[in-house]
Amino acid sequence: MEELTYTTVGRTELVDVTSAVAESIAGKPGSAVLVYVPHTTAAVTINEKIDAVLVADLERAFEQVVGDDWRFEHDDIDGPNGPSHGRASVIGANVVIPLRDGEMALGRYQAIFLCEFDGPKHRSVYVSVLA
Amino acid sequence: MEELTYTTVGRTELVDVTSAVAESIAGKPGSAVLVYVPHTTAAVTINEKIDAVLVADLERAFEQVVGDDWRFEHDDIDGPNGPSHGRASVIGANVVIPLRDGEMALGRYQAIFLCEFDGPKHRSVYVSVLA
Amino acid sequence: MEELTYTTVGRTELVDVTSAVAESIAGKPGSAVLVYVPHTTAAVTINEKIDAVLVADLERAFEQVVGDDWRFEHDDIDGPNGPSHGRASVIGANVVIPLRDGEMALGRYQAIFLCEFDGPKHRSVYVSVLA
Repeated sequence: MEELTYTTVGRTELVDVTSAVAESIAGKPGSAVLVYVPHTTAAVTINEKIDAVLVADLERAFEQVVGDDWRFEHDDIDGPNGPSHGRASVIGANVVIPLRDGEMALGRYQAIFLCEFDGPKHRSVYVSVLA
Repeated sequence: MEELTYTTVGRTELVDVTSAVAESIAGKPGSAVLVYVPHTTAAVTINEKIDAVLVADLERAFEQVVGDDWRFEHDDIDGPNGPSHGRASVIGANVVIPLRDGEMALGRYQAIFLCEFDGPKHRSVYVSVLA
Repeated sequence: MEELTYTTVGRTELVDVTSAVAESIAGKPGSAVLVYVPHTTAAVTINEKIDAVLVADLERAFEQVVGDDWRFEHDDIDGPNGPSHGRASVIGANVVIPLRDGEMALGRYQAIFLCEFDGPKHRSVYVSVLA
């Protein structure tokens, strides 16, 4: 298992981790790659990397899927970040991508994004090759 | 890794791919099956296959989880399909199903659905057996 | 593949299954754990286990992500539970967690939750170690 680390800047921020994931698995035999986020207010998803405008669209959309104005009572050392926890579960803590000829079989427009929902924070992304 | 191909008809459309996935892995030893969609406006999910009315319900619900009337600025060769990208990330690009005695351990009512969110289009579904 | 069983009490209820999953895989070599729910109105997610108030927040949030007042026409032996089906797909039927030194590499605050969306019911959770 490899660990990648990031420091996020925005409250909600999609960070393209595709190249770092690809480098961390280079040369390792297997049939799939597990990308996992060990946090409860961050997630990982796959979407299009080409258009920066779309990335901003997705950041806004993920904030609207679980609204800041909904009823949340959670309030801890990180503040009242209930919506951040909700978004993390809706998007999910892991993706699994098949390997083909030793490389991730990503679609032409696909990238892997760490999804920060409660930044800025230091974050880890775990990468494992499955046999 | 096997590749299944589909041509979708509707803008939003759930396509039952369960039988094709089962056929593509028949006789292959392993502990789980990865079903992966290499697109950014399509996804894969597991739900009930019995009631066609429910499938239509789910298509409408997935459109409402990320609304067409939200603010999206993305507009490329495929048109202003930001909501389609958002739905793809909320539902997710992969499912992993355990194998038991060589067959997918699906629940009695479960089926695997390719989720088209920007059709009609030609789509691929990748299937890999994990050890 | 191990099978854990639960009886849920609430209509929507998050049940912490982390310890039971950990026990079921103890001593088994591999690189990741697949946790899978063979139902169409239940799901599995990872979130914070520390604050009971947050768990209640998440239960309410997941009910709002797919609203009870949306248009659903499905009505079978379980009643008109279309929203329960929608929530199951949004949260998802599986999570995959990497193994590190024989134990799940969960983050400090992470727990694995069975998500009941149509209880009370008897539910199963499948657990498989991937090589």
